[in-house]
Amino acid sequence: MSIALSGDMDEVHYSGSNAGVLPTDTAKNTVYAFAKEHGIDSAEQFGMRLARHFVTSQPGLRRARVQVEEHAWERVETTGPTCHSFVRSGRETRVGRIGYDGERWEIVSGLQDLTVLNSTDSEFRGYVKDAYTTLEETSDRILATEISARWRYRWSRDGEPAPDWDRAYERARTNILRAFAGTYSRSLQQTLYAMGSHVIERSGGEGGEGGEVDEIRLSLPNKHHFLVDLTPFGLTNDHEVYLAADRPYGLIEATVLRAGAPARIPADLLRDR
Amino acid sequence: MSIALSGDMDEVHYSGSNAGVLPTDTAKNTVYAFAKEHGIDSAEQFGMRLARHFVTSQPGLRRARVQVEEHAWERVETTGPTCHSFVRSGRETRVGRIGYDGERWEIVSGLQDLTVLNSTDSEFRGYVKDAYTTLEETSDRILATEISARWRYRWSRDGEPAPDWDRAYERARTNILRAFAGTYSRSLQQTLYAMGSHVIERSGGEGGEGGEVDEIRLSLPNKHHFLVDLTPFGLTNDHEVYLAADRPYGLIEATVLRAGAPARIPADLLRDR
Amino acid sequence: MSIALSGDMDEVHYSGSNAGVLPTDTAKNTVYAFAKEHGIDSAEQFGMRLARHFVTSQPGLRRARVQVEEHAWERVETTGPTCHSFVRSGRETRVGRIGYDGERWEIVSGLQDLTVLNSTDSEFRGYVKDAYTTLEETSDRILATEISARWRYRWSRDGEPAPDWDRAYERARTNILRAFAGTYSRSLQQTLYAMGSHVIERSGGEGGEGGEVDEIRLSLPNKHHFLVDLTPFGLTNDHEVYLAADRPYGLIEATVLRAGAPARIPADLLRDR
Amino acid sequence: MSIALSGDMDEVHYSGSNAGVLPTDTAKNTVYAFAKEHGIDSAEQFGMRLARHFVTSQPGLRRARVQVEEHAWERVETTGPTCHSFVRSGRETRVGRIGYDGERWEIVSGLQDLTVLNSTDSEFRGYVKDAYTTLEETSDRILATEISARWRYRWSRDGEPAPDWDRAYERARTNILRAFAGTYSRSLQQTLYAMGSHVIERSGGEGGEGGEVDEIRLSLPNKHHFLVDLTPFGLTNDHEVYLAADRPYGLIEATVLRAGAPARIPADLLRDR
Repeated sequence: MSIALSGDMDEVHYSGSNAGVLPTDTAKNTVYAFAKEHGIDSAEQFGMRLARHFVTSQPGLRRARVQVEEHAWERVETTGPTCHSFVRSGRETRVGRIGYDGERWEIVSGLQDLTVLNSTDSEFRGYVKDAYTTLEETSDRILATEISARWRYRWSRDGEPAPDWDRAYERARTNILRAFAGTYSRSLQQTLYAMGSHVIERSGGEGGEGGEVDEIRLSLPNKHHFLVDLTPFGLTNDHEVYLAADRPYGLIEATVLRAGAPARIPADLLRDR
Repeated sequence: MSIALSGDMDEVHYSGSNAGVLPTDTAKNTVYAFAKEHGIDSAEQFGMRLARHFVTSQPGLRRARVQVEEHAWERVETTGPTCHSFVRSGRETRVGRIGYDGERWEIVSGLQDLTVLNSTDSEFRGYVKDAYTTLEETSDRILATEISARWRYRWSRDGEPAPDWDRAYERARTNILRAFAGTYSRSLQQTLYAMGSHVIERSGGEGGEGGEVDEIRLSLPNKHHFLVDLTPFGLTNDHEVYLAADRPYGLIEATVLRAGAPARIPADLLRDR
Repeated sequence: MSIALSGDMDEVHYSGSNAGVLPTDTAKNTVYAFAKEHGIDSAEQFGMRLARHFVTSQPGLRRARVQVEEHAWERVETTGPTCHSFVRSGRETRVGRIGYDGERWEIVSGLQDLTVLNSTDSEFRGYVKDAYTTLEETSDRILATEISARWRYRWSRDGEPAPDWDRAYERARTNILRAFAGTYSRSLQQTLYAMGSHVIERSGGEGGEGGEVDEIRLSLPNKHHFLVDLTPFGLTNDHEVYLAADRPYGLIEATVLRAGAPARIPADLLRDR
Repeated sequence: MSIALSGDMDEVHYSGSNAGVLPTDTAKNTVYAFAKEHGIDSAEQFGMRLARHFVTSQPGLRRARVQVEEHAWERVETTGPTCHSFVRSGRETRVGRIGYDGERWEIVSGLQDLTVLNSTDSEFRGYVKDAYTTLEETSDRILATEISARWRYRWSRDGEPAPDWDRAYERARTNILRAFAGTYSRSLQQTLYAMGSHVIERSGGEGGEGGEVDEIRLSLPNKHHFLVDLTPFGLTNDHEVYLAADRPYGLIEATVLRAGAPARIPADLLRDR
């Protein structure tokens, strides 16, 4: 978890007066105390409680941004009656950033390190050729990437019905995976757009839940899998043996917006943990 | 994957003659070619094939050690007919080290980064007190660790019935988790011994499968969870809010042997990836 | 090195047409070929050459951003005549980001991982106290941080006299260190401002060199050093034994601008490598 | 720093009795208290003090191993009188492992992460060719590696004159670098042997200083630099443009012993931090 506070901070920089400074140590203590006093429903809700506290309790603080990470645990299956043993389920990390300025909320949820691979239904052809081109076109390649995604909910004001954060997360995650699995890919860019538009279009929720997503940003490293040339050894590589290269790699990034919505997720947030 | 070759290498060091040196590049090519020619049944079997090749094909090479890592993938659940999409399942990494000297095999399998936590049934009391002791005893603590384990199979010779490596791995993994979940813990050392002896005692396999484990080494960092003192804020911490500290930490390591078996797993193998 | 290209990319996302896509592989080849054809004077100049090439040679590419890292090497001192041996000098990494849109340049240089420590002349007092405060004020503490900095040069157009990039880098680096060493610190915020304003005010260069810095952004993790309480052992800790904690930590970030200059360095660039 | 204690630990594993267990927390406190009470002359001496304390003060503890790391700092050059500002000098990390069993000492010093490169005077020819060979011989290549080294001093008993640890470290480091710079290399193995034998043969020290080195182990990843093929672009690469590959790589490891000395540095210590 990280907490960013900003506001009227001229004096601390110019004269060294700390009269408006809330120390890191106090922010840390506040997190502990709030965990006890209020418990934790979801990462988003806990972050909102903290953001509201900092902005409303310190006059010079104008904006708070709280970033949270949530790791999943599963119960260990046992033959006996024990039910207090857990094993970390490491498939991905759920993240969130809660922004508050005393009036409006900006809730960005997302995920990190979700590694996916399509073993076929991917090609890469028809690209620009110039004097420096050596890459050969392929009509059947492995497409692999490690998904980082951040989506921003439309919800922004107390009083409006807020999303169910856990259900909204699951819905976005499912839509991202379904788009990845269901798209015949002509490029990772095209797959990215399919993921993003899936999330935007299918984020409605049932019964006016308020979980609409207005913006999503995706960062997709192209984890190139190169066919190994086996001809020096008298063998034919019929799409069986690949080198999973890690450098250099292409990094495809883009924001998909609902028509009319503003772009507010900074380009670099997806690398900021 | 890493491949270590050793043997008659005096000249390369003394005179600079490379007549006995198999280059890294050739070892890499061999891996690719074998993947195509022979396929991969299990990490252990693929490593054995490579080790045998290097030791038997080069006169000066006396011993080969092949280390392998295996990551798990799951299919992406979709509503349609696609079945070529996978998502990385990151709970732990399966590892193996295959040793061969032309006559005897030494197969060590294991796992890395399996993070587990018991939320109760753990205490730590009755330890040494000296002039530098400040730690207070506790009769109810969180016990958490990140399991690294390596176990050595008794099997060592061609001609003897070899284990089913995948089933033997699953059996060892299950026994480790069951011992962790089922042990009331007076120390992480005691829990370690329970894990290790579980694996040794229950590794038999059905029908003389040959998967007996003679030795297991475990390395368990004590991922301390400290109760946060909430009294300065007028709150009582009834085992609810913990600080998951990461430094300094205790690291508990030991080897558990079947009676009469030699200890062959080097102490540092568990940090060697 | 990383290269980011953007422009008219609608079709690749919508229809999967790759007619405007320059593959990663081609960008890589271009870097190799340019290294041979043009050599490397400074990181900035090499990045500029690449940025200009991409924007001017591909009609659909509107903007290029090239990020570079430069590591320092020193010659190995020997007694003999050899002069082809080098040892990596790892004090910090020099970085740069070159932006070009076909008309204007935006050159941001900087450094990463420059770890510094003041053993005295640092205090932290007079900060906000609330119900969650437990931190005690101190009038003599260790101040340590790992400096990340990015500064933007005023220079932006071909035809204007460009800075000497190497000299401008050295000047900024020296000013940052001098400000750190010469400031009696009431907070890390105040020290940050001293560093930033030093760079802005002293970036002129001699003889109209064009190396003026209009903006600098600094990111300074507060590497807290806590006095260890030795009283349980009958000892007095007279500012001698510290715990160099790494979590939680305060992260102080700010941009210092020349009067009238716009802020263009994104907040998260300093974590984007 | 890490501290490993071993001895009569049967009961803690079998019955869960902690009567012989010195908690991690106490070991940590001891480090703090000793830093105050005794100060730190060199990493080795501080480690020895701790090792002696643990072995002699706890009846069940038979052996202690203390591992230390030492990072270098330089003073910041300023124009004024300040002399309390330091900048981390990151060229390498100095490490040590102090072993003690109540009678004999085993002092292993070393270094990590010393990256070096020879731009010429390196070849690789005359190696084994088999069906999987594609690598071409070269009579002029770049040789680069990241040196990990551990050397064991002959000194082992109180009463014998002990080395000056700082001078002995500098001597070994200088000998390693000189051997690297001064050897025309036919293979990294040969260069390794030159480094190791240099250290063994020139470790005498002046005036019976006791700093003789009996054993040294080196681990040298071959940081391959491959000539990039520029012919597709109509260019000739005259040993100017290289790809600094990082995978796969060869790892050359060996121990060099003084005639008659036993090998005691475990193969995996160099990866154990």
